[in-house]
Amino acid sequence: MEAFVMRSIGVTGIVEKERPEPGPMDAIVRPTVGLICTSDCHTVHGAIGDREDLTLGHEAVGIVEEVGDHVERFEPGDRVAVGAITPDWNSTAAQDGHPSQSNQALGGWKFANVKDGAFADYFHVNDADGNVAHIPDGVSDHEACYTADMLSTGFAGAENADIPMGGTVAVFAQGPVGLMATKGARLQGAGEVIAVETMENRKELAREYGADHVVDFQEGDPVEQIMDLTDGEGVDSAIEALGADETLKDCIRATKPGGTVSNVGYHGEGEFRHIPREEWGVGMAEISIVTDLCPGGSLRIRRLLRMLEQDRVDPTKMTTHEFDFDEIETAFDMMDEKSDDIVKPLIHFE
Amino acid sequence: MEAFVMRSIGVTGIVEKERPEPGPMDAIVRPTVGLICTSDCHTVHGAIGDREDLTLGHEAVGIVEEVGDHVERFEPGDRVAVGAITPDWNSTAAQDGHPSQSNQALGGWKFANVKDGAFADYFHVNDADGNVAHIPDGVSDHEACYTADMLSTGFAGAENADIPMGGTVAVFAQGPVGLMATKGARLQGAGEVIAVETMENRKELAREYGADHVVDFQEGDPVEQIMDLTDGEGVDSAIEALGADETLKDCIRATKPGGTVSNVGYHGEGEFRHIPREEWGVGMAEISIVTDLCPGGSLRIRRLLRMLEQDRVDPTKMTTHEFDFDEIETAFDMMDEKSDDIVKPLIHFE
Amino acid sequence: MEAFVMRSIGVTGIVEKERPEPGPMDAIVRPTVGLICTSDCHTVHGAIGDREDLTLGHEAVGIVEEVGDHVERFEPGDRVAVGAITPDWNSTAAQDGHPSQSNQALGGWKFANVKDGAFADYFHVNDADGNVAHIPDGVSDHEACYTADMLSTGFAGAENADIPMGGTVAVFAQGPVGLMATKGARLQGAGEVIAVETMENRKELAREYGADHVVDFQEGDPVEQIMDLTDGEGVDSAIEALGADETLKDCIRATKPGGTVSNVGYHGEGEFRHIPREEWGVGMAEISIVTDLCPGGSLRIRRLLRMLEQDRVDPTKMTTHEFDFDEIETAFDMMDEKSDDIVKPLIHFE
Amino acid sequence: MEAFVMRSIGVTGIVEKERPEPGPMDAIVRPTVGLICTSDCHTVHGAIGDREDLTLGHEAVGIVEEVGDHVERFEPGDRVAVGAITPDWNSTAAQDGHPSQSNQALGGWKFANVKDGAFADYFHVNDADGNVAHIPDGVSDHEACYTADMLSTGFAGAENADIPMGGTVAVFAQGPVGLMATKGARLQGAGEVIAVETMENRKELAREYGADHVVDFQEGDPVEQIMDLTDGEGVDSAIEALGADETLKDCIRATKPGGTVSNVGYHGEGEFRHIPREEWGVGMAEISIVTDLCPGGSLRIRRLLRMLEQDRVDPTKMTTHEFDFDEIETAFDMMDEKSDDIVKPLIHFE
Ligand SMILES: [Zn+2]
Ligand SMILES: [Zn+2]
Ligand SMILES: [Zn+2]
Ligand SMILES: [Zn+2]
Repeated sequence: MEAFVMRSIGVTGIVEKERPEPGPMDAIVRPTVGLICTSDCHTVHGAIGDREDLTLGHEAVGIVEEVGDHVERFEPGDRVAVGAITPDWNSTAAQDGHPSQSNQALGGWKFANVKDGAFADYFHVNDADGNVAHIPDGVSDHEACYTADMLSTGFAGAENADIPMGGTVAVFAQGPVGLMATKGARLQGAGEVIAVETMENRKELAREYGADHVVDFQEGDPVEQIMDLTDGEGVDSAIEALGADETLKDCIRATKPGGTVSNVGYHGEGEFRHIPREEWGVGMAEISIVTDLCPGGSLRIRRLLRMLEQDRVDPTKMTTHEFDFDEIETAFDMMDEKSDDIVKPLIHFE
Repeated sequence: MEAFVMRSIGVTGIVEKERPEPGPMDAIVRPTVGLICTSDCHTVHGAIGDREDLTLGHEAVGIVEEVGDHVERFEPGDRVAVGAITPDWNSTAAQDGHPSQSNQALGGWKFANVKDGAFADYFHVNDADGNVAHIPDGVSDHEACYTADMLSTGFAGAENADIPMGGTVAVFAQGPVGLMATKGARLQGAGEVIAVETMENRKELAREYGADHVVDFQEGDPVEQIMDLTDGEGVDSAIEALGADETLKDCIRATKPGGTVSNVGYHGEGEFRHIPREEWGVGMAEISIVTDLCPGGSLRIRRLLRMLEQDRVDPTKMTTHEFDFDEIETAFDMMDEKSDDIVKPLIHFE
Repeated sequence: MEAFVMRSIGVTGIVEKERPEPGPMDAIVRPTVGLICTSDCHTVHGAIGDREDLTLGHEAVGIVEEVGDHVERFEPGDRVAVGAITPDWNSTAAQDGHPSQSNQALGGWKFANVKDGAFADYFHVNDADGNVAHIPDGVSDHEACYTADMLSTGFAGAENADIPMGGTVAVFAQGPVGLMATKGARLQGAGEVIAVETMENRKELAREYGADHVVDFQEGDPVEQIMDLTDGEGVDSAIEALGADETLKDCIRATKPGGTVSNVGYHGEGEFRHIPREEWGVGMAEISIVTDLCPGGSLRIRRLLRMLEQDRVDPTKMTTHEFDFDEIETAFDMMDEKSDDIVKPLIHFE
Repeated sequence: MEAFVMRSIGVTGIVEKERPEPGPMDAIVRPTVGLICTSDCHTVHGAIGDREDLTLGHEAVGIVEEVGDHVERFEPGDRVAVGAITPDWNSTAAQDGHPSQSNQALGGWKFANVKDGAFADYFHVNDADGNVAHIPDGVSDHEACYTADMLSTGFAGAENADIPMGGTVAVFAQGPVGLMATKGARLQGAGEVIAVETMENRKELAREYGADHVVDFQEGDPVEQIMDLTDGEGVDSAIEALGADETLKDCIRATKPGGTVSNVGYHGEGEFRHIPREEWGVGMAEISIVTDLCPGGSLRIRRLLRMLEQDRVDPTKMTTHEFDFDEIETAFDMMDEKSDDIVKPLIHFE
């Protein structure tokens, strides 16, 4: 079969591979559509170290091709969604309420990290019963594909932010995760959502997904703008959806005493993140800093699919570009350069 | 001044009273509009015992007439909303996170219970800084009046129900509290909301406020209908918004193991509520039963006003009738009999 | 091999059975010691329906005899503890934070319910990596055996009770679960623990495990006695450790507004449990009623073993009697009749 | 009356002042004993800016001298304890569950910050009903004085750390707050408590208060030592009780994915605290960083007094030195220099 791989740091390509075989609890899925993620780009640039011919991709849906002997809920031909994170559900961390940290930090992240990813004619899913969900009839493959990472991560940013009903929320950066955090804040009862962004098409998407205000950080200090919008109080909750030192600092600065900073950005560089000591209340202002890695699992995916089935959110507005699988290198390069105002490129596998 | 009072059990009337005086932290408010509540009717029928010329009403907004010497945030002329529940914020229960239980069970409920209520030319509010909120310019008195009880109680039903993002929720009874619980469930991220109701206009309102399904209990056992809608699983969360033994039982029956039953109904009669032992999992199915009395306080009201200011909800659809203050006895009798499909009657005081 | 079984309702016996075989993730354990549980007695009396030659017992520790091909953390010869509840960790309920409810209400309870229990020469454990823990050197088999159910269930009663540091707790019934709830309340920071019991040896054990007061319900209404001890306030948290209608009612009556009733009793009889409407604050006093089925899993057992290793608790004080396996029927009958002031009987398998 | 004051940055002295007068809800207390706090020293060195003749001290108990007209629960002659933090209970932050942040960051901290402290013949307490507690007969003034700050802050470090029953905890620094955090961890059910300290007398106190291990950071990297003690896993919870960049970093490094870092140290210097990016799991390891300012209020103090009454903890072991009020400058200087292995100096006012 063909697979789109990271050949080595900085180099991608299409290579021929053997079709994977399922273990007793696993499934083999034939993808129909996939979405390229900025973290695929980080990986190719070496963020998690070198890899040799590692298949890329962790956002894909498709058709079950084969299942292991102990799989109970799926059979070949089923149309399914798969989380980007596929936890080991009996691991200590999962038992402790942190499945994404199975066995080690970020250990639930397997696709295109510790094993081949989804951008191939077939891909392997560990623990199918635990990590796969049937796509309901009213939900398209395109929509469903967003449950793998963007919906799950973005919404988690809001779910973890301890947003009071009618509370105020700032969401820093309106990439696809930030946009879904903006939408997630609305779905968690936020009374006022302030999006921080500078690119025009993303500002517009932010408004469509429910931002009441959009603050452009190129028009002045975003924290000052947020303070103006909140009568100097600061927000109840700030969501970091970029993964940069500056935005994390701004989150802390923009949050009121007793509030919560919820991080879903991937912090790829630098030895330290910096907590501004005074705005952090010298360690006593009861501002919590919480983090998350994309929640996975069949239950999570099933609930997100229900949100799509009931038209709670339309993530396909974020799909700015579409490509066939044989054009995936072009798609990847555009995503890497964020050219043509790309937000998310959809890949068709058939 | 004139006041609409409970003269004794079963008897109402308009009487002349002295205008109240504020203590050092209190305010006197001149109501502009108010809403009659079914619990006013319960009170007149003797639910909390006999009273002599007790002014009725706990849902009203208006203009500050006078404030005590230690009030800092309000002055005469301010347009304000006041919660139905006005806690003693330094009480033990409030310090423990349960302000509505100040000093005793339900002790935050003062209006038309342990002191005169709001249906008079003026009414007295304890601890103005703690219990009053300014109404923003974009919010009408009519809208704001719903924050006192209906929005706060109905939303609390959903906030306490531990609804997962994309989860399933059943809301039993679609009176004004139930309707706001239905809306609240949507605002808490519910993926599927099932309203239980039989009256046509309330079924329609339930759909407008976000119910995905409406189950009519006169067309069959509502729990069976809910089981059918949830593939036999039961719901993640059930909300009791009526205050009856049968609906509380049904909530427990309709909730899956690990789910939550959130009660906001006022249970006015009977020695016991009944937990069905088997469906409760013989005391081991991890179904929680939680309750609440309408959250009050300036912060709560301010956040609910923000929801109105940002058009998150339009509670005025529930106002089926309007009356002048001199017609309040007619309004009260209609509410008592639920005649003419009344949901909420608005009273104009000026 | 020999197994102590329920032959049918009301009848026990020792029968010959085939040694079980492990699936790919399972283990076969040879028990060294076990503890008879009152719920074994309930089962024989028909509480979960009829069974034919079902091996009894769910509290046992022992030596790993054999493991399946996919088991990673255990090998033959390991000395291990096993929870009474052995969840399916990839089930929907487990993913939702309720592993004891795997697949159905109480679905994590497999031993001596839906499959053979532990009172045999060998017993089968599903998902060894997920449900088994190594016993540390400093912990005896006798001590470790208490982690299976008594420590896990009793402590959970306290953990779920939302006990504030320095708060007041009442624990109804001082059987082995209640005694461990009393100890658990101390380990959760309770400032005053009131045990309710009438049997002398259990009252004494309650004091040893940390009760500050023991209330004898034969010397007057226990709720009144609790009110006297708490200056009429009621307790922050009440724990039901018996499974009776009367004690659940008393828990609600004894709990202050805003407090928590934590049930760990198995309610085996009657169509309903009764919530006293007025003391429940007519559904508005913010008294929560929560329940639990014994938490299981390798992490839970490991943490409980650590409590034993570090001498946080000595559960062996509850072992009032010891027997060899060939005397197990005598032990069972004594437990059934609670004769000779029996609390827990230990069975030696070798 | 006489008062021990900060005359200006770096300068202390005893001055004559007018006895304060109570507002309608306030009390005047005549201290019997007090404890000098390291934060008094920070204040004198300018940590919160310059002050002119500000009375120092926030840890004291005494006798009520006078109360305002609206005080209901106290009268002259009552023996009482007062929290170091005296919140405005009707403030927005208090209503939001963060009373220590009343009106502004750390706004509940009034003594020796925004108004005169307790080290005088009399001191003023705002909102007596909300912030004062009667000392039970069995509790000495000496013991009770520890509830003001050391018990409340140290225990809060543990209460916020989300310690699982049987979990592992590291407490960085064993000053009086750290020692009470160590004790607090035990009282929250920790299965293994690792204290980090180098001074001999504090290491010994740590063991007395319940540390299972004491790691000396002068004998090697404390994080490595903690990793060794936890089989390379890291701890479930780490508590920062010093207020230094290095210990906060070490807390994050020592905490497992999914764990919690609970800060109660006062971070007095530096522009930033540093989060080590990799050990923080690149912002995705679900390690939460939470903070607190000493919880105050009559309920909190009452519960802490109950812990003393029931002999749950003996804080007086930390009192290494005692002085009369006329020797307070000597006591202050010793505390400032931490000479003679001082831990806490007790001041007798009469
Ligand atoms: Zn992705
Ligand atoms: Zn009402
Ligand atoms: Zn048992
Ligand atoms: Zn202090």
